[in-house]
Amino acid sequence: MSSLDGEAKRGAATQGLHRVVVIGAGFGGLAAIQTLRRAPVRLSVVDRQNYHLFQPLLYQVATAGLNPSDISGPIRRILRQQRNADILLADVVGIDLARRTVILADGELGYDSLIIAAGATHSYFDHPEWEEFAPGLKSIEDALVIRRKVLLAFEIAERETDEARRREWLTFVIVGGGPTGVELAGTLRDVARMTLARDFRHIDPASARVILIEGSPRVLPSYVEQLSESAKRQLETLGVEVRSGVHVTGIDAEGVWIGSERIKARTVLWAAGVSASPLGRMMGVPLDRAGRVIVEPDLTIAGYPEVYVIGDLAHAEQDGRPVPGVAPAAAQMGKHAARSILRALGGKPREPFRYVDKGSLATIGRGAAVAQIGRLKISGFFAWLLWLFVHIFFLIGFRNRLFVMIQWAWSYISYDRGARLITGRAEGPLVHGLTESRLPSTTQAEAIK
Amino acid sequence: MSSLDGEAKRGAATQGLHRVVVIGAGFGGLAAIQTLRRAPVRLSVVDRQNYHLFQPLLYQVATAGLNPSDISGPIRRILRQQRNADILLADVVGIDLARRTVILADGELGYDSLIIAAGATHSYFDHPEWEEFAPGLKSIEDALVIRRKVLLAFEIAERETDEARRREWLTFVIVGGGPTGVELAGTLRDVARMTLARDFRHIDPASARVILIEGSPRVLPSYVEQLSESAKRQLETLGVEVRSGVHVTGIDAEGVWIGSERIKARTVLWAAGVSASPLGRMMGVPLDRAGRVIVEPDLTIAGYPEVYVIGDLAHAEQDGRPVPGVAPAAAQMGKHAARSILRALGGKPREPFRYVDKGSLATIGRGAAVAQIGRLKISGFFAWLLWLFVHIFFLIGFRNRLFVMIQWAWSYISYDRGARLITGRAEGPLVHGLTESRLPSTTQAEAIK
Repeated sequence: MSSLDGEAKRGAATQGLHRVVVIGAGFGGLAAIQTLRRAPVRLSVVDRQNYHLFQPLLYQVATAGLNPSDISGPIRRILRQQRNADILLADVVGIDLARRTVILADGELGYDSLIIAAGATHSYFDHPEWEEFAPGLKSIEDALVIRRKVLLAFEIAERETDEARRREWLTFVIVGGGPTGVELAGTLRDVARMTLARDFRHIDPASARVILIEGSPRVLPSYVEQLSESAKRQLETLGVEVRSGVHVTGIDAEGVWIGSERIKARTVLWAAGVSASPLGRMMGVPLDRAGRVIVEPDLTIAGYPEVYVIGDLAHAEQDGRPVPGVAPAAAQMGKHAARSILRALGGKPREPFRYVDKGSLATIGRGAAVAQIGRLKISGFFAWLLWLFVHIFFLIGFRNRLFVMIQWAWSYISYDRGARLITGRAEGPLVHGLTESRLPSTTQAEAIK
Repeated sequence: MSSLDGEAKRGAATQGLHRVVVIGAGFGGLAAIQTLRRAPVRLSVVDRQNYHLFQPLLYQVATAGLNPSDISGPIRRILRQQRNADILLADVVGIDLARRTVILADGELGYDSLIIAAGATHSYFDHPEWEEFAPGLKSIEDALVIRRKVLLAFEIAERETDEARRREWLTFVIVGGGPTGVELAGTLRDVARMTLARDFRHIDPASARVILIEGSPRVLPSYVEQLSESAKRQLETLGVEVRSGVHVTGIDAEGVWIGSERIKARTVLWAAGVSASPLGRMMGVPLDRAGRVIVEPDLTIAGYPEVYVIGDLAHAEQDGRPVPGVAPAAAQMGKHAARSILRALGGKPREPFRYVDKGSLATIGRGAAVAQIGRLKISGFFAWLLWLFVHIFFLIGFRNRLFVMIQWAWSYISYDRGARLITGRAEGPLVHGLTESRLPSTTQAEAIK
């Protein structure tokens, strides 16, 4: 700490203001930046993307309910008024802790204080080969790949004449029963039952099977048991087949293996594993098994009091348990890190971080959700309404709130989903099986039902 | 014609209904399909995309004003109520006129009547190598490539320390002064002057140069001279540099050549040439220079009275001039072809096609447009209002109309553009020069203005 203060004073004397670099403009990074709004610091924000992404609604892009721009906003627009923040679109390839320098793919950036909020990505554990067959959901690009894959599956099923293959195209497996997996599974059934119901001539989209596989004994394992039970019931009401306590042992272009059991499915989506950004590994500091940086109680790296790690990249312990990798925790950490920098600049001692759990919400489908707020536990329609309001409230930017509300109102009334486009050029994983499947002959095209 | 009638009767006797195949669900194809709504035919619609695209607004996606889903709608949803239409997502790779069979990449489709509405794509004339440096604008994927390229140019300029290179990144050349080029040029200046104005710290986006190059002596050459003049003045008021009567002779990663004159620009967009779909060439029938099929007065191919070619793929002459390649002409042709099929089925003689020109409208920027309706010529704000209403009116689907109106209202009030996301993975043409440019050193990042 004394070294930080010394550096800050030297910096102020020789080159002007204290230099703060924030890596990543997700929930954690953005909270840190905005907390430093009026601070006498030079702030540089580095992100690979030009937008902040509201990840909790990413599954809605994957299921054609929302547009990418509805759940994201340009970082420059969000920070337009914050004149002390310089925004750089750049790739961070390393951090030289000794030299206090962030290494970019195309330059360097010195800092006095550093906040690392680089987040996490999906992880296939020891099976990187599964990624080809089971895309995960962390970025807008991922969401569009999944949207394309799901919509194409129905199109191919429509043209498939072989009944067994048609069933394979109409079978969707989601691996992972956390919030993302539950949301994807429920929403896919909604899409099949309602949105696509009357659009096809040869298939009944409502007959699509959606199978949700969770390794632990119950879905939403981070919720209380009562809500896991309720989530399972709500999923089953929507027609999702819930398989918990079983492990996927193989994934290929034609389905998944659970031990010796084969589930034939042409669409497999991955919502199971998360691993921290590789930035953690690059620094040579202590990590946990998921690659997260083990931080001090004040969120800094041991031995580097000027370097904070926050959000999904941080492993912070509280009361013997790790702080969960959720958006509110990231935002609280960002605020704490920014305040710690200000306290240090003011010569005040720093304080340990305390996560305040304000509750958890997971949606399941139209009118279906679970919520856990302190001792309060709600399920069903009221939990779903609460989920709607909370997500609109926390969206950044009036424009996003307005447009998401309008789209949701539209979808609720019309059962329609606005963004049902198959875009992007076909790449490997999207067309598995397309060329090998039997495709329409004159006979099939003539067999109009 | 007699052969068509004979075939139709045989078809009806042996296998049921007359089989109509429509290739392409653009303006022409969709008009044909909808005209056959209640006809006793078996209708197959083949398209490579699962959506109909409202191409006149594609430049708004390229300039981040609208989302892809705002200007397109799933073909299945549009035709949901039309139970006689079977929709196939498929690639047409050839047409066997003798066997009356459409060859798909993965199957075949027999027909009694065929309507080919495969449209056009952009053409680089004898310079296919220019495509790499100057993307064109025909598909949603094209629009997203341009959006990415334009937004990235500002980001790179923000980080460029060399003043000359920075100017190159802030120079945008649009090749082609037809409606698309004019719309792109005007809107790009609007984006630079208004949307991005306060978002950067090191550059002034409003200083971006936009240069519009047109080979013929005036922009909008298909309009009357008075409106071309007005369009030029309106473009210049927005700050666009209009260069007409000059030809681009070279394009590379760093700019364009006009003879021996070099214009350094890191972003070059192509709005110059259009060539018909390659389907025309595959059939071995008479084509014009642009690859369009020369059709009979009733829009059929000579010798094949059961095959209609409509829209941008058709070269139809009227009063010694070709019918223009615009959306209303395609829709009128589609309607005519469908009615001809019905007349032939009813044993009535077919009639020649007459294009009714209802006028032309081109927008230039916020509050700027030109309109030519019969003898009426309007410019400026009222032409722009007319343009707004006409485009909203002709959008397909209530949802699209509603969402485009809301987004436009939002943009008009806030000067904001909703879809300012740099998405997609970097590919060759997008990153030309990015790695070679001098990128931010600590020095630059410190030099906050």
